[in-house]
Amino acid sequence: METSAVKPYVVGMDIGGTNTVMGIVDQRGNILATDTVKTGQYEQVEDYVEAVCAKLIPLIEKHGGAENFRGIGIGAPNANYYRGTIEQASNLPWKGIVPLAEMFKQKTGVPVAMTNDANAAALGEMTYGAARGMKDFIMITLGTGVGSGIVINGQMVYGHDGFAGELGHVCVDRSPEARLCGCGRRGCLEAYCSATGVARTAREVLVANAEPSLLREVPAEQITSKDVYDAAVKGDKLALEIFQRTGEILGRAIVDFIAFSSPEAIVLFGGLTKSGEYIMRPIREAVEANVMPIFKGKAKIILSELKDADAAVLGASALGWEA
Amino acid sequence: METSAVKPYVVGMDIGGTNTVMGIVDQRGNILATDTVKTGQYEQVEDYVEAVCAKLIPLIEKHGGAENFRGIGIGAPNANYYRGTIEQASNLPWKGIVPLAEMFKQKTGVPVAMTNDANAAALGEMTYGAARGMKDFIMITLGTGVGSGIVINGQMVYGHDGFAGELGHVCVDRSPEARLCGCGRRGCLEAYCSATGVARTAREVLVANAEPSLLREVPAEQITSKDVYDAAVKGDKLALEIFQRTGEILGRAIVDFIAFSSPEAIVLFGGLTKSGEYIMRPIREAVEANVMPIFKGKAKIILSELKDADAAVLGASALGWEA
Repeated sequence: METSAVKPYVVGMDIGGTNTVMGIVDQRGNILATDTVKTGQYEQVEDYVEAVCAKLIPLIEKHGGAENFRGIGIGAPNANYYRGTIEQASNLPWKGIVPLAEMFKQKTGVPVAMTNDANAAALGEMTYGAARGMKDFIMITLGTGVGSGIVINGQMVYGHDGFAGELGHVCVDRSPEARLCGCGRRGCLEAYCSATGVARTAREVLVANAEPSLLREVPAEQITSKDVYDAAVKGDKLALEIFQRTGEILGRAIVDFIAFSSPEAIVLFGGLTKSGEYIMRPIREAVEANVMPIFKGKAKIILSELKDADAAVLGASALGWEA
Repeated sequence: METSAVKPYVVGMDIGGTNTVMGIVDQRGNILATDTVKTGQYEQVEDYVEAVCAKLIPLIEKHGGAENFRGIGIGAPNANYYRGTIEQASNLPWKGIVPLAEMFKQKTGVPVAMTNDANAAALGEMTYGAARGMKDFIMITLGTGVGSGIVINGQMVYGHDGFAGELGHVCVDRSPEARLCGCGRRGCLEAYCSATGVARTAREVLVANAEPSLLREVPAEQITSKDVYDAAVKGDKLALEIFQRTGEILGRAIVDFIAFSSPEAIVLFGGLTKSGEYIMRPIREAVEANVMPIFKGKAKIILSELKDADAAVLGASALGWEA
């Protein structure tokens, strides 16, 4: 904490396919200022870095300049912690291996560390959220995709190559008819518990059952977990069935994660978790029904404590302290 | 290494359901002396500790006494690293929670550390075997059961409760007809890739195929991977099919382990691995065919480099240096 007392701020930067959000963060996790850039508008990464810095550098100056900043933490898809690169990110405009950490460091004069968005979320949860004080937990982000960040012995798990923690792509259905995942393989957890996975389960449930359902009013391709939640609140039976199926698949996957690292908690984050107990109860029931006896009742299944809008920036900023 | 230079020896003790083997080990991994006790003969744990010490203490004395020993490392089923206990071990005579580390420490005057047998095997591999110099690898032991020891960032993964690394009990078949495992659940990796799992696959293959096979000469319940190997060497088609199925199940499970911690290597140990390329080729093929693109060609699938007879004692002894 001595160094951070001298340098009281970090930058947290969340790079998504649509927007890049950057924030100035202090040691207590207060976001003092933010700004955004449209990621998708910049086909050349040099132009993108230029555009980000045109907004970021004035913010840094306003807070005392580079010498007041411990680091810049970046969360981005397919980011490599060891190399400070983004590698083959399918939903970013820049192809191949992009040395983004070095580029930002040269422009700003502040050290840069980066990791993937789910790892950043886990760091944020450990530093400011539901996993404060925990040395062993697994963060699972349930959004457009399913991501994860794993913490063991108080350390982020990066693996030998910097890409560990791809729990959205463990196989939950090994049958030949298993769902095709965006990664090109079949049966991945992400194909069932991401936003599109839930919409697909909704379609299957609606086709397989003749019963009336409020969800029949929503175009089948566009059903979100929010629609399912709204229907469930009104007692819609098929909506409850969709949460049941989704929760059971996720719960059984979590059972295998527990067998791996026996974490103190599984922290869930993202759109699906806004459905609260409608989704949490089936998850917890599936975990308790299937977990090994030796692990029964041990791992807590809890929700993120970071506010949606802040979580990505806070998570990335947590990495800034280590930069 | 300073401390260990002062205290040049450790004890490695492997507690199995049938035998307990103890050995005096030096810093280079040489086993200088060994002795054994029949574990199953002692219904009272106090009598067991007495019997072990009656043989162990003279060995310690012969090597300069307790002051020459850095520690006693014990590998045992269901051993808890944090608490130094054996807890609810189904194939040991003592029920409940047994504070074995403390009992041995009081009798010998040497510090004691214990962990489960698969974790001990991983420590042995890291200290003296195929995983020397690796910071991220997973050891999988294929014997009567399927065990595992996971190393991440150069540290053994014990989990928040000391029981992490139960990879023999991840689910590889979520269908209701999946095989029943010894743990009482269905579809565990152990139900397919342990000795009894391989025998069971052999029976299924022999029943499902009318073809002649050398394996039809062996009582179906007793087929071991050695029998399957002997038949495979002679070109037996069904024997090759058994390895193919077993290797594919294990390979696909390994794909999920890679998604978790992205290890540098998977180290395999135990009876099944004696079949060499007959089993290793299907495992490697299943890994390469199913692993995420980002991990392709990265994790090595390799064999243990510790000799069978020595591995358990060496593995346990590696823990002795940390006691």
